[in-house]
Amino acid sequence: MQTLPDDPLAAQTKLALRRLASSVAVVTCHDGHSRHAMTATAVNALSMQPPSMIVCVNRAAAFHAAINDAARFAINILHRNHVDISMGCGGKARGEERFEFGAWGEDTGVPVLTDAQARIVCAKEAKFDYGSHSIFIGRVVSIGMHGEIDPLIYIDGRYTCLPADQSVATAAQVEIEMLRQIAM
Amino acid sequence: MQTLPDDPLAAQTKLALRRLASSVAVVTCHDGHSRHAMTATAVNALSMQPPSMIVCVNRAAAFHAAINDAARFAINILHRNHVDISMGCGGKARGEERFEFGAWGEDTGVPVLTDAQARIVCAKEAKFDYGSHSIFIGRVVSIGMHGEIDPLIYIDGRYTCLPADQSVATAAQVEIEMLRQIAM
Repeated sequence: MQTLPDDPLAAQTKLALRRLASSVAVVTCHDGHSRHAMTATAVNALSMQPPSMIVCVNRAAAFHAAINDAARFAINILHRNHVDISMGCGGKARGEERFEFGAWGEDTGVPVLTDAQARIVCAKEAKFDYGSHSIFIGRVVSIGMHGEIDPLIYIDGRYTCLPADQSVATAAQVEIEMLRQIAM
Repeated sequence: MQTLPDDPLAAQTKLALRRLASSVAVVTCHDGHSRHAMTATAVNALSMQPPSMIVCVNRAAAFHAAINDAARFAINILHRNHVDISMGCGGKARGEERFEFGAWGEDTGVPVLTDAQARIVCAKEAKFDYGSHSIFIGRVVSIGMHGEIDPLIYIDGRYTCLPADQSVATAAQVEIEMLRQIAM
């Protein structure tokens, strides 16, 4: 079923989805020839029995052929400081160039971002096609975590991050109260 | 495949997933007898050809039988002020009680939260089972949006929201500077 670009329901759906905040992840794999990476927000936990994840990939994306051929893939949850990696793997760079920015290593043969908030390596177990996309299901085989919890977030067509630590807001409020008492 | 609660990989996966920020949504349906609602973070866009969404639901959840019998479902993306609705539909309330809090209406026979950030009504088109969960695929049939973009976000086991408007931070800074000048 094709939807024309000017389909009003597609246009409204896009507007509605601008309101869905998501963590930004880079999905990576090695297809036996080379490594591949693609920025994605359509990444989610699926089950804990067994621990498993889903990733939705457009069949028109170059990454689709790579993940289709790979036995494993990794989900690398980006930190707020990883905007350059998100943009590079989101279209600015191509192929191996996508690994020029960032601290890339590997885990069980899969490229991983060593300072990702979390890196979740999965064995590909199933694929379901619907419309323009495939849903890939992976069973978790390896986990890594790095640093404080401060993920990069995508909302309303832009990047943002979580609010600063409550203690910062509290400190500002305390300073305002203190200065008020001195000033008044 | 069963995973014991003390499976170290499941425990690590849970820790890693605390680092994945998500919008909070309430998924709703009418199964022909009554209306049902369940809080979910495993909700995502799937395709724009056709406009479609996915929702992952635990087969052990009461909501699973309801969405399984329903022809349509709605994804209601919560606003930062909807924490009570998230908690009610996340387990505190049961059945019809879940609709006691919030401005509920209906759209093409499906319960919708009229002041949700966005409400996305879908015709159920496919279901795929994996592990403990089912992935439901819905083709978008109706969209509603409400208010400024300010979604409720779940991260690290707690609720939060996007950082306040820059103008608020700027206003606090201006007040601090002004008070400093008066006080010093």
